Amino acid sequence: MPEWSAADRSWMSRALMLAERGLYTTEPNPRVGCVLVADGEVVGEGWHVRAGEGHAEVNALAQAGERARGATAYVTLEPCSHFGKTPPCADALIKAGVSRMVAAMQDPNPQVAGNGLQRLREAGIAVECGLLEEQARALNPGFIKRMQQGLPWVRVKLAMSLDGRTAMASGESKWITGPAARADVQRLRARSGAVVSGADSVLLDDSALTVRANELGLPSEEAAAAAERQPLRVLVDSLRRVPLEQRFFREAGPSLVISTSAEQAADDYLAAGSELLAVPGADGKVDLQAVLQILAERGCNEVLVEAGAGLSGAFWRAGLVDELIVYMAPRLLGSQARPLMQLPFESMSEAMDVAVTDMRAIGQDWRITARPIFPS
Amino acid sequence: MPEWSAADRSWMSRALMLAERGLYTTEPNPRVGCVLVADGEVVGEGWHVRAGEGHAEVNALAQAGERARGATAYVTLEPCSHFGKTPPCADALIKAGVSRMVAAMQDPNPQVAGNGLQRLREAGIAVECGLLEEQARALNPGFIKRMQQGLPWVRVKLAMSLDGRTAMASGESKWITGPAARADVQRLRARSGAVVSGADSVLLDDSALTVRANELGLPSEEAAAAAERQPLRVLVDSLRRVPLEQRFFREAGPSLVISTSAEQAADDYLAAGSELLAVPGADGKVDLQAVLQILAERGCNEVLVEAGAGLSGAFWRAGLVDELIVYMAPRLLGSQARPLMQLPFESMSEAMDVAVTDMRAIGQDWRITARPIFPS
Repeated sequence: MPEWSAADRSWMSRALMLAERGLYTTEPNPRVGCVLVADGEVVGEGWHVRAGEGHAEVNALAQAGERARGATAYVTLEPCSHFGKTPPCADALIKAGVSRMVAAMQDPNPQVAGNGLQRLREAGIAVECGLLEEQARALNPGFIKRMQQGLPWVRVKLAMSLDGRTAMASGESKWITGPAARADVQRLRARSGAVVSGADSVLLDDSALTVRANELGLPSEEAAAAAERQPLRVLVDSLRRVPLEQRFFREAGPSLVISTSAEQAADDYLAAGSELLAVPGADGKVDLQAVLQILAERGCNEVLVEAGAGLSGAFWRAGLVDELIVYMAPRLLGSQARPLMQLPFESMSEAMDVAVTDMRAIGQDWRITARPIFPS
Repeated sequence: MPEWSAADRSWMSRALMLAERGLYTTEPNPRVGCVLVADGEVVGEGWHVRAGEGHAEVNALAQAGERARGATAYVTLEPCSHFGKTPPCADALIKAGVSRMVAAMQDPNPQVAGNGLQRLREAGIAVECGLLEEQARALNPGFIKRMQQGLPWVRVKLAMSLDGRTAMASGESKWITGPAARADVQRLRARSGAVVSGADSVLLDDSALTVRANELGLPSEEAAAAAERQPLRVLVDSLRRVPLEQRFFREAGPSLVISTSAEQAADDYLAAGSELLAVPGADGKVDLQAVLQILAERGCNEVLVEAGAGLSGAFWRAGLVDELIVYMAPRLLGSQARPLMQLPFESMSEAMDVAVTDMRAIGQDWRITARPIFPS
């Protein structure tokens, strides 16, 4: 691996920060940033804003104009070498006369990885790859997983009390956590390609699962752009118990209902502006892995599961969860209240270790981020 | 309140740090530190080490000798004005010729508060009180509560999984948390006047509840001093189910068993090196508040409850808990596992808010410190 200078690291950090500005808007595309540097000065920079619009490299080149000639390009992801909605970025960099290109990571799609770098090398450009790769990967966990495994990155979000309970036994639950945590959840939704919930939650809370600009806690322009692209709202409703009059169906934005059988009912859902799919599993319930594959095929990189203990536990038990995000409220709901997830372990040997990757105060609550550790 | 200088604050901080060196040894006395300063230089400093030995002021005066004359004394607690196991410190300060005395806080005992300050004032010494009072109070929560309310400061310590469970339904539980958390619990025991457990816990874990020098994670000299003074080990065993052969009774150090009836059995416990008391409550169970009053009368400032969900929940429900200390392990024990505490709330209106006062990583685990918020 090449030895990069402090300046190289600094320019790539800048490119990563630019990439992050697409956090809420690029789905199904990855977040990518690009900085063009000549003689120690930025001559152009850009990031990918949304699908169908310019890629990061193209935006940066447009800003640089003639000054791109002989410059170094720092890009957080290997430039594409194929014609998609836009022409290949590798060609644009060659045409602009860039003399050196540093990428943070290769294209995660194993079938095209390295093609863009190769194309640049063949054009005589000095090409390096791997600078701040870990940070670059963290920007696009879902895009990477989808390209490599055909599955989205799955987050399960839950709000619990200090004693690990999500609601009273009766189901009574609203507003366990404070406004800062709720805004944080809005931002999780906004970065996701799909938000998944279950019939019980949607019926009990009459939740819409939409992104609401004024609840994101973001600067107003950013908030407006985030709320413009609503995530696909997915309702797992095996027996189609949620009536089409429910708020879930009345809100704007795409929605999808997954049941175990569709039959003629699909037309009713279409008429209500939604879509009904049957994804039955072997056990008579919905096949959650198949649902995730469908979401990946539709371009969902990151999927947020916002459901009760039953559906959340089912995703966890099936080994489909990449990240558990728990908001812990400073409150005790007591020993009869509902559990975090339905995980009916009987002995300590079934208990599952997790890796806590982040823990921080969010307003009056605490947010715990953990990843499953699968026995090797 | 006087305006204190930066130097005053700095010297009092030093006195507070000295006081803290008595954290594991001063029970039933408070932790107290003293710094004597003349011409901007420390001429003597000391802290209270253990009951029966010199108070902080006396230790500092002994170090200063003649240089105490005209010095300022910074003391974390109002000097005593009465003859206890040692002569009054106020008199010693007067006799040594100290010219100014700054105390962090008054004696918490309402019957003597201010007497020591008054005695010094009458001797012509400039007396100020209240500098860094909050920090001084935090050193001795138990001593203060015992003096003012006749009750100890009660901490309930629990180890739970991320999903709020303490053990499998079968009771299987050992080693949920890692070695750093266990050392932290040893230090909690070591600073306590008494450690309280219940019959189920002692039977299931065969726990001794002793302080073990080599498990404290402290420098060896400090660890040896801490382990020398064992907390009173208290077993709440209404029906006297724990046999005298259990490890609890075989370990060195004082122990006390609380049941609902004592009768002739007391002699058997005495013969086993323990003590049996009957503290029946109106409901046929042990009267926990009365137990705490007995412990306060015996000089216990801080009491650590290390018990299961039943006894811990009973203390909590009775409103007797000052601090909840939860060690959270990065693990999921599942929805059938045992709850944090038995708190059979049925509606959200019964849920109790807590104030999280501290949250930090302890080795692989997290420690959450919270205080109850009682509806006002």
